Amino acid sequence: MIGKFNLTPMLKPKSVAIIGASRNPEKVGNIILQNYVSAGYSGKLYPVNPNADEILGLKCYKTMQEIGEEVDLAVIAVPAPMVPMALEECGKSKSKSVIVISGGFSEIGETALQEQIKNMANKYNIPMLGPNCLGVVDTRSRTDTMFLPSFKITRPQVGFVSFVSQSGAVGSTVLDIIGGEGCGLSKFISYGNAAQLDEVDILEYLMNDDETKVIILYIEGIRRGKEFVELARKITKKKPVIVLKAGRTSAGQAAAISHTASLAGNYATQEAIFKQFGFTIAKDLSELVYYAKIFSSEIEPNGNRVAVITNGGGTGVITADAIGSSELLKMAEYSNQTKKTLRKAMPPLVNITNPLDLAGDADSKRYSDALNAVCSDPNVDMIIAIVLFQTPGADSTVTACVVHQKETVPKPIIAMSMGANYTQGQKVQMEAGGVPTYDSPAEAIASLEALFKYAEFKRKIKG
Amino acid sequence: MIGKFNLTPMLKPKSVAIIGASRNPEKVGNIILQNYVSAGYSGKLYPVNPNADEILGLKCYKTMQEIGEEVDLAVIAVPAPMVPMALEECGKSKSKSVIVISGGFSEIGETALQEQIKNMANKYNIPMLGPNCLGVVDTRSRTDTMFLPSFKITRPQVGFVSFVSQSGAVGSTVLDIIGGEGCGLSKFISYGNAAQLDEVDILEYLMNDDETKVIILYIEGIRRGKEFVELARKITKKKPVIVLKAGRTSAGQAAAISHTASLAGNYATQEAIFKQFGFTIAKDLSELVYYAKIFSSEIEPNGNRVAVITNGGGTGVITADAIGSSELLKMAEYSNQTKKTLRKAMPPLVNITNPLDLAGDADSKRYSDALNAVCSDPNVDMIIAIVLFQTPGADSTVTACVVHQKETVPKPIIAMSMGANYTQGQKVQMEAGGVPTYDSPAEAIASLEALFKYAEFKRKIKG
Repeated sequence: MIGKFNLTPMLKPKSVAIIGASRNPEKVGNIILQNYVSAGYSGKLYPVNPNADEILGLKCYKTMQEIGEEVDLAVIAVPAPMVPMALEECGKSKSKSVIVISGGFSEIGETALQEQIKNMANKYNIPMLGPNCLGVVDTRSRTDTMFLPSFKITRPQVGFVSFVSQSGAVGSTVLDIIGGEGCGLSKFISYGNAAQLDEVDILEYLMNDDETKVIILYIEGIRRGKEFVELARKITKKKPVIVLKAGRTSAGQAAAISHTASLAGNYATQEAIFKQFGFTIAKDLSELVYYAKIFSSEIEPNGNRVAVITNGGGTGVITADAIGSSELLKMAEYSNQTKKTLRKAMPPLVNITNPLDLAGDADSKRYSDALNAVCSDPNVDMIIAIVLFQTPGADSTVTACVVHQKETVPKPIIAMSMGANYTQGQKVQMEAGGVPTYDSPAEAIASLEALFKYAEFKRKIKG
Repeated sequence: MIGKFNLTPMLKPKSVAIIGASRNPEKVGNIILQNYVSAGYSGKLYPVNPNADEILGLKCYKTMQEIGEEVDLAVIAVPAPMVPMALEECGKSKSKSVIVISGGFSEIGETALQEQIKNMANKYNIPMLGPNCLGVVDTRSRTDTMFLPSFKITRPQVGFVSFVSQSGAVGSTVLDIIGGEGCGLSKFISYGNAAQLDEVDILEYLMNDDETKVIILYIEGIRRGKEFVELARKITKKKPVIVLKAGRTSAGQAAAISHTASLAGNYATQEAIFKQFGFTIAKDLSELVYYAKIFSSEIEPNGNRVAVITNGGGTGVITADAIGSSELLKMAEYSNQTKKTLRKAMPPLVNITNPLDLAGDADSKRYSDALNAVCSDPNVDMIIAIVLFQTPGADSTVTACVVHQKETVPKPIIAMSMGANYTQGQKVQMEAGGVPTYDSPAEAIASLEALFKYAEFKRKIKG
């Protein structure tokens, strides 16, 4: 057991029972089973439904007891009033973990029913996620309990970001963005009403999970303040945590009460705690994703001096403005050695300045020469490679060249590219190659700031 | 003549000569000609090249004089030293306008050569754009002098936004974003070194252009401050202008000097002018696009009260937070009539609050009922329809329902949807239906703020 609860059977199940599996393709119990089958899950799958013999080609069981095995994970997708009975079956057949997908509990005022299933889970000592949640995705074990079809949500590739979300809708949206941008995911845990397992339990587990190197967290309320603070004190020493706390303002708090009936709490206090313990604070869903990208590159900057390389002068100027407006970052000044190397390698019309404007006809050779010189400069801590793929010379060879630098240089290197189809394709390649890639100077600079701030936090607690 | 210069022959040419047309598909003169042919331009096309008889199936002319017609537009794409000769030919053959695409002038210190072509254009009294520019795109006349292939830049559809850019690279990038998002464009004018025509001349023309309802402007320097201020005083009374002035900080100013050799000027002064005359100020390329979208919907809000409708509670809370943090906007309070109507139309589990959370199973019927009630509420000035397309009930029928509201309700209605492929497809449909569609609460709120601010500015100057 890693935290108070061992979530390994839930995330890495060798066997999964789906209670409420259905032959009707519109039913949640069918979509979940279908997703397991399509994802190529290699463990044992047990559909449970008293009224069916076979679903999607799999033998169907009338009860949990009939399976005759202690399953690692039981996914419950039956109407709320039937959940206690299903849970009782899980307890008696010694399931090692349970996810209650079904809604119809405290979120609609059915607090007694929720209390009942919480007590049952505790009585049988089973870790229980939900109710009213999407459950979990683990890209390595290919477990995926989301009842949302894959044509609507691009499933992310294997990676090291784990995402904990109180809200299922926010969770699925962010997952879709992560998937679409080609950024990797380790685990997604949607905990819904948190009858038993809550954000503290889940974070405790992820803090010690080797497959998780970055945590992103969406919460509306913090139920166990004291335990949260204790955990906060420890977790950021181990890995970066990005938090989006909804209900920051009175307008948002009113909305949060209506949404999850949980008190949002005093945001000023919460923000002070987040800041004290080195959390990265996001205020928008998009920020969760772009901070996740920068931290998953896993390289911390030694300082705050940024070099900008571009094939579009104007975009270089806008980026310099964004750095000029930053309270944390500054433009790097090249060493004399770098200036000499660049002057020799660049065409006469390229001014040797930062930002370095390689001009609209820059190709991979010019990018490569520039990146080689700038990235090895001891006066440069972080590098932004702007690639405007609209220009004639910018194509996949430039992408490959940025990825190569990322693989060989122990400094944070990010890319910035803006545009439609052709550009989007190249951006996914960059991300697949481990280069965090941004849509705008504002996003790129905010991300580098967050990375620098966390590096400073870690230096402070070490020194 | 509308401004000091008549740009109609340049933007709506009945005949175009391309000086430097080439048979080599990698040459600028070939790509431009090819783009005209592919775009279905219906005027007369005259390739000019002394060494060819035919290019892309079109008869080729040795000189401008040989054409035997006063062409509306001559596009010059020959090496810099040959530009004066080409321009002389244009003057003698009475071309009505000229675009010099070629680089190699003041941007590399060749100020004398630039002065020479400026004097020639003035001597012959020809409006001349450039040199060192991408020229123009006019979606209605299908003129397009960009030497960038269409697979790299998604060309925008016909619309009412005109975009003036000093930088070609910034221009092409923003155009690609506009095209990719399905937002419409009227004209794109890249003016480069501005030997003769500059931002003031171009804005003067666009101010009186009926096909232009919104202007977006990217500038690094303002050369004729006095004339700019005179124009600024008039232009925003007629239509909204969004400006991104690069070189706002000392880091950016240093970069701007290196980029275009033009002094960026004192930004505090410039910003004061922009604010005084009701310009919308952008600080990032992405802002140019999202402000352009909100203004092109052409409906001004009567007040600052925002209603939020969502199928994801968490996203509603984050949006309420963004409104709660705004100094300009506030959450609307529904009238009693609206509350009654909603209570009757919505399922019991939907709380009648703002944000209105329609729940994860909301379909087009529920959206339609909610939008009908909320949009007609006299206490609501602006509406944000959040549609998370990841959820089961959200599909193109919901998109159609939001578009229908937009078409029938005289209040600003915007949409917010985040996600990958499926969502992107729906967003393009929303934009095509005239609904400005945003990626995040931050973008959506900033856009509504800009719209409200401009409406207030117009009320002030009227009253």
